[in-house]
Amino acid sequence: MRVLAESDIRRLVPLSLDVVAAVADGFRALGEGSVATPPILRLDLPESRGEIDVKTAHARGWDSFAVKMSTGFFDNPARGLPSGDGLMVLFSAATGTPVALLLDGGYLTTVRTAAAGAVAAQWLAPPRVDTVGLVGSGVQAWFQLCALLLVRPYRRVLVWSPTSDHARQLAERATRDLHREAEPTPDLERLVRTSDVVVTATPSRAPLVEGKWLHAGQHITAMGADAPDKQELAGDVWRRADVAVCDVRAQALTLGDSRHAVEAGSLDPGRLWELGAVVAGRRPGRTASDQVTVCDLTGTGIQDTAVARLAYQRALAEEVGQELRP
Amino acid sequence: MRVLAESDIRRLVPLSLDVVAAVADGFRALGEGSVATPPILRLDLPESRGEIDVKTAHARGWDSFAVKMSTGFFDNPARGLPSGDGLMVLFSAATGTPVALLLDGGYLTTVRTAAAGAVAAQWLAPPRVDTVGLVGSGVQAWFQLCALLLVRPYRRVLVWSPTSDHARQLAERATRDLHREAEPTPDLERLVRTSDVVVTATPSRAPLVEGKWLHAGQHITAMGADAPDKQELAGDVWRRADVAVCDVRAQALTLGDSRHAVEAGSLDPGRLWELGAVVAGRRPGRTASDQVTVCDLTGTGIQDTAVARLAYQRALAEEVGQELRP
Repeated sequence: MRVLAESDIRRLVPLSLDVVAAVADGFRALGEGSVATPPILRLDLPESRGEIDVKTAHARGWDSFAVKMSTGFFDNPARGLPSGDGLMVLFSAATGTPVALLLDGGYLTTVRTAAAGAVAAQWLAPPRVDTVGLVGSGVQAWFQLCALLLVRPYRRVLVWSPTSDHARQLAERATRDLHREAEPTPDLERLVRTSDVVVTATPSRAPLVEGKWLHAGQHITAMGADAPDKQELAGDVWRRADVAVCDVRAQALTLGDSRHAVEAGSLDPGRLWELGAVVAGRRPGRTASDQVTVCDLTGTGIQDTAVARLAYQRALAEEVGQELRP
Repeated sequence: MRVLAESDIRRLVPLSLDVVAAVADGFRALGEGSVATPPILRLDLPESRGEIDVKTAHARGWDSFAVKMSTGFFDNPARGLPSGDGLMVLFSAATGTPVALLLDGGYLTTVRTAAAGAVAAQWLAPPRVDTVGLVGSGVQAWFQLCALLLVRPYRRVLVWSPTSDHARQLAERATRDLHREAEPTPDLERLVRTSDVVVTATPSRAPLVEGKWLHAGQHITAMGADAPDKQELAGDVWRRADVAVCDVRAQALTLGDSRHAVEAGSLDPGRLWELGAVVAGRRPGRTASDQVTVCDLTGTGIQDTAVARLAYQRALAEEVGQELRP
């Protein structure tokens, strides 16, 4: 069994087109109906305000599958520890033998989530993107910006955050590290009106983006909502959508942003397509330049398996990591 | 994070009264209602006749909890590999930090399952046991025999197996390693009629033990059934039971031996008590020497957490294992 430390994994699996392609393969397999994703195992520890989620998924024909354990312990910051941690175990799909322990500390989750944003943009965003509107300024917002650059090399980014200082810092980082024209803005309406692609990556519990701000040809990816009480898009955003997509319908309709639109009657769930079906060519994505496309991402296990396999393949090729002998 | 190899774990956690006590603590916590046990996560890989089960459980107040991954890949024996493998990750219950990786290969499952048999005997078997009847001759049958010796130091053992050679080998081993009078027998009725305690540990899919063979004061533990189609006890065994016990009612009534008795109308599920409630003193166990007691064990996550914690505590105390730095 090979053990990979977080530093190894960060070096082996930077956010790149290979990661986006691996995650797209996962979505394609989902769309082809060849992925098994059992329901999440979740244990709550109310005494320490903690929780652990365990996820797994396997695509028929893949040589391995990952089991991911993610923890959230919300008193940790007061002790100087991060609230979230995580690790994965990769198993052989032929024999069940554990082949790798990935002590990624949640890094691979960040990367696979960003890669899903890139997959959504690849299949749904207009081919040429001048301006990106980024709603949010956390780690995932930054990774979304990096991921989007790989598939839609935009010229300019506008950044909005509830904390204006954070928006400024993220814009400075985009200027410095991505060499983009970047501007923080307190005017969310202007951001949405000006951008070809809008990505929302906040923990918001009230709608931020309104449908009347949208324009023809625009693409929106909403990443933030992953719980029933989270919401970033107003219901009328979905009314404006010509193409409405989510990653996993059953999950999006319970935890995702589209849930609110369906409940409010702004979205017929029958026209909410799955990203995997679009990637697999079973559903059309964007078919005209003036369409509005909206995608709701909640995260699914095959993304974890996809990036864990990539990390392990590269670790073998580069002879990185420590081999444990039981 | 400390990594423990199977050889370390076997040396640190031999089957002993300490293990039985740790598992009894787990059952007591269950009986006190302080254990969280989420439903098992299970992934099937039909293409390779494989499956993985992930279990976890936490007892309020315990400093850590285990996540156990067990695989069964049924084409492995043809490749010269064991069909089952397993490992556990132990997490801090205060911070969610993974503290240990236990590469036990399924050994801890064997031990915790045997320890549950000892807990059942401690609370339900007659205080003095002369003869034990062992039904089955596999690894778990052997461990049950060893576990029972810790809590009821019997004089003699009778062994029955569908394969008479296996019964003979196990009896020879009991003579040699446990210094007991041991005898293989092809006569299951005689075995049951002669024994103070009967333990069944087979993968049988048809009842083996009949109620009319039982006598006053006898205790029976049925370990083998862990799937809806498995059964070791005839329905009338439960009719004869003055005290009917299982480990986890909801699970026993779907996967365990008592399921068949309830379906056949031989057992009122309202009088099927949980072992944890007995250990916690909330239900009486054996209260008279002439009672017939029957216990159906299917296995539950807190047993895993109990033995994983013991392995880790001992590894720290004896400075065993390899410390990984992410």
